[in-house]
Amino acid sequence: MARRARQRRDAEEARPGAPASPFVQRRLPFFDVLDEETIVKLERQVDWLIQDVGLDFRDDPEAIRIWEEAGVKVDECRVRAPADWIRSLCAKAPREFTQLARNPERSVRIGGANQVFAPIYGAPFVRDLEGGRRYGDMESFEKLVKLAYMHPNLHHTGLVICEPCDVPVSHRHLDMVYLHMTRSDKPHLGAITEMSRAQDSVDMAEILHGREVMDRNCVIMGNVNTNSPLLVDKVVTQAIQVYCGRGQGIVVVPFILSGAMGPVSTAASVAQAMAEAMMCCAFAQLVRPGAPFVLGNFLSSMSLKSGAPTFGMPEPVMSNYAIGQLARRVGLPLRCGGSLTASKIEDAQAAYESADSMHSTMLAGAHFVLHAAGWLEGGLCTGFEKLVMDADRLGGYQKILDQALAVGDEDMARDAYEEVDPAGHFLGCGHTMRNYTTAFYEPALSDSENVESWEEGGAKDMRQRAYERWNAMLGAYEAPELDQAKDEELRDYVARRKREIPAAWY
Amino acid sequence: MARRARQRRDAEEARPGAPASPFVQRRLPFFDVLDEETIVKLERQVDWLIQDVGLDFRDDPEAIRIWEEAGVKVDECRVRAPADWIRSLCAKAPREFTQLARNPERSVRIGGANQVFAPIYGAPFVRDLEGGRRYGDMESFEKLVKLAYMHPNLHHTGLVICEPCDVPVSHRHLDMVYLHMTRSDKPHLGAITEMSRAQDSVDMAEILHGREVMDRNCVIMGNVNTNSPLLVDKVVTQAIQVYCGRGQGIVVVPFILSGAMGPVSTAASVAQAMAEAMMCCAFAQLVRPGAPFVLGNFLSSMSLKSGAPTFGMPEPVMSNYAIGQLARRVGLPLRCGGSLTASKIEDAQAAYESADSMHSTMLAGAHFVLHAAGWLEGGLCTGFEKLVMDADRLGGYQKILDQALAVGDEDMARDAYEEVDPAGHFLGCGHTMRNYTTAFYEPALSDSENVESWEEGGAKDMRQRAYERWNAMLGAYEAPELDQAKDEELRDYVARRKREIPAAWY
Repeated sequence: MARRARQRRDAEEARPGAPASPFVQRRLPFFDVLDEETIVKLERQVDWLIQDVGLDFRDDPEAIRIWEEAGVKVDECRVRAPADWIRSLCAKAPREFTQLARNPERSVRIGGANQVFAPIYGAPFVRDLEGGRRYGDMESFEKLVKLAYMHPNLHHTGLVICEPCDVPVSHRHLDMVYLHMTRSDKPHLGAITEMSRAQDSVDMAEILHGREVMDRNCVIMGNVNTNSPLLVDKVVTQAIQVYCGRGQGIVVVPFILSGAMGPVSTAASVAQAMAEAMMCCAFAQLVRPGAPFVLGNFLSSMSLKSGAPTFGMPEPVMSNYAIGQLARRVGLPLRCGGSLTASKIEDAQAAYESADSMHSTMLAGAHFVLHAAGWLEGGLCTGFEKLVMDADRLGGYQKILDQALAVGDEDMARDAYEEVDPAGHFLGCGHTMRNYTTAFYEPALSDSENVESWEEGGAKDMRQRAYERWNAMLGAYEAPELDQAKDEELRDYVARRKREIPAAWY
Repeated sequence: MARRARQRRDAEEARPGAPASPFVQRRLPFFDVLDEETIVKLERQVDWLIQDVGLDFRDDPEAIRIWEEAGVKVDECRVRAPADWIRSLCAKAPREFTQLARNPERSVRIGGANQVFAPIYGAPFVRDLEGGRRYGDMESFEKLVKLAYMHPNLHHTGLVICEPCDVPVSHRHLDMVYLHMTRSDKPHLGAITEMSRAQDSVDMAEILHGREVMDRNCVIMGNVNTNSPLLVDKVVTQAIQVYCGRGQGIVVVPFILSGAMGPVSTAASVAQAMAEAMMCCAFAQLVRPGAPFVLGNFLSSMSLKSGAPTFGMPEPVMSNYAIGQLARRVGLPLRCGGSLTASKIEDAQAAYESADSMHSTMLAGAHFVLHAAGWLEGGLCTGFEKLVMDADRLGGYQKILDQALAVGDEDMARDAYEEVDPAGHFLGCGHTMRNYTTAFYEPALSDSENVESWEEGGAKDMRQRAYERWNAMLGAYEAPELDQAKDEELRDYVARRKREIPAAWY
């Protein structure tokens, strides 16, 4: 009975169904962890970094020209600017915006009270229970895109869900963007590693969405890291010019391992991240006022033993809460956190660290959450099982955020107390009958049966159940409909660009 | 090198050292999830349950006499009372109080901005990686008490850390209380299952602490469940009479599986739990005004497949946040949550569910957290590995609560930016050298090394590392000092009571 119910439910969930809501529309209040005095100290530090210390903008003369044209006296490549002016530029970015998906039911709203969950980005390795750990390849990449598309708790498919290492680096972005566009109809990101690759992504988005739609909407975004501390290289400034120049969105993320790329202090690292991202936001607004911008933050603590980054620890958890409040204060959409862990496999360590990391990410109000599912090994590895395990938990977070605590008349259940006496039970009462099917979120991968049933079912741990689940999902995959002419135009574009660009492995 | 460092650290942590602080002294602000309108609706429901529906107080004529003496017209055993009066009685309980440990450095403060973590309570089974799942026995019980005593992140040892099923039920409480008193010097609970067992616990506490100390302090507490819905039996009222009658503390906990012991609605179940616990608090204050009282809450969601309780789900997580706010509003110390899971083993499911459950428990401000470590299988099983795994995470939570985000001058690290250029690194700078050893919480059981080091070390998952750790801890156990005359007096008490009480298995 329990097994039949599970098979039925697995089959249902494996069908790509639009989730109840294509993104989180938060009703739960925000959690402000910083008092006014603390905020003022942090903002004073941000201003000091912007005005007195400054950031280097390197390797992109056009970026220097843009700063100078705006009246900044650039000292070699060091940009220092009045903090008030930087803040007034940041205020030109929208507090929230829509990224259009090719299926309009999947479009996401980023910023404000909205939150969007996307999978892991950038891992060179993949791991699954059958194949073990290995380099990512295009076959894995395609499977992972399909899973991100099918999973109702992922709102967005990101881009580099793993590195497809079997395709030349110079061609890789074309295949990746094409697969996100065709194997899924959820929103996704474009490439950033070189200006021409960013341009290819934007051009392909124009084919998919059409010029007019693209003129008026954000349909694609890039996600770039600064070179912390305090360095912005041309990868960032050129991606901003390509994406924002075309009215599209950009996510700029300082990645700070405290003690290495920032001081060994959470407060100082958070302030540094704010300063770096705000300078990039100001730059983006100089490129195009009103360009959608997501202020990123990726902060890690460190193991004393080896200097290795650690995840899910109290310091990055605290930084999620703090940066959430600071981002609301400056009025910019935020990317931070994710289901992060340093564990090599999908064991309890992975889950403890991922849950603490993601719980704080969701409560903090992160608007765009890359790495919300699938992350292992400090981001070096995408786990197939981890992807569906994490995503399973995201549905619970969405329910907390979307619904908070409902207190309508039906929720108060007064008629139930007329039916049920003290020490009685509510199992069959009218209120229970009316509400039980929707009362509780039941994750597909949690086994709550008693030990006897669980042992009868083979005593499978969550990894094994997750392995079965993603395989069942892939077995049920159906590609979302796509206009054939558009598909052909995209294929032609990819083929032409592959002819034009020499295959290179760097 | 990494292995040597780990061995050294394990040896250090295995020594019973007083933690940095014997309980959490929270600096992090509280998180208020309910708006005023929602609170008013919930409080109106609580008042309606108290005034119009009422609770049955059964099987204890003395309890009825106490209510009637206070002016309540009891209808058979149904007690309805003006909500204002019940609230005014609740206001007599202290907002915070100290439970004295026999080692004064281990005394805990419960209520207000203080939070106390204690292990699992009440599981009939135990599980460890070597011995598998089996009935609890006195040997396991003693080991678990030692581990709870030694672990720096547990502040309190609870009582029934597992059921010692090899000892007659009628004698069990004597051995349990004796072992908590002698194998540990942290605070603990007493027995409640029968009035005479509660009395034995209180009498033994008087031997340990002395009559005078006990007259002026809370040195022991009982923890009892109501029979939800809306039934309070003699186990509760007699425990209140014994513990509170002697000026000691009581924790009263409605256990509500929504849809069974309460309506299939989180809001209604939370209100019911408030009403039940507040009525018990009022009763306790009639027994002895000013008696330390902890308002308990244990709320679980349900699997649609089987009706089995589920843990770590969005509904109980939300209830933790809500009850935290309601308890602050009524001014009573709160017990809720814990590291709860329905998983049978220490896999990723166990960790995801435990972390979401405990993250919300700690943020919610729960003042006394039973089940903070060791819980498996919906509370049916104490896991040796799970105990040290969960406890490991508690240190991170304590750091978040105790320290929040420090923003002193040293935290802002301005001198580091004078030393380090853009794109440089902070690894060797003065600020890092001054602060790196205390900057980060490093849990003993998280492995953050790279995959090669981890594989060289045997590719051990967290369960295996936890197994090694608790064995190493037990190997290093040393009993805390105890006055020999007191120990003999306790032994004599236990021996005498065992002669007086017939051995019974119920």
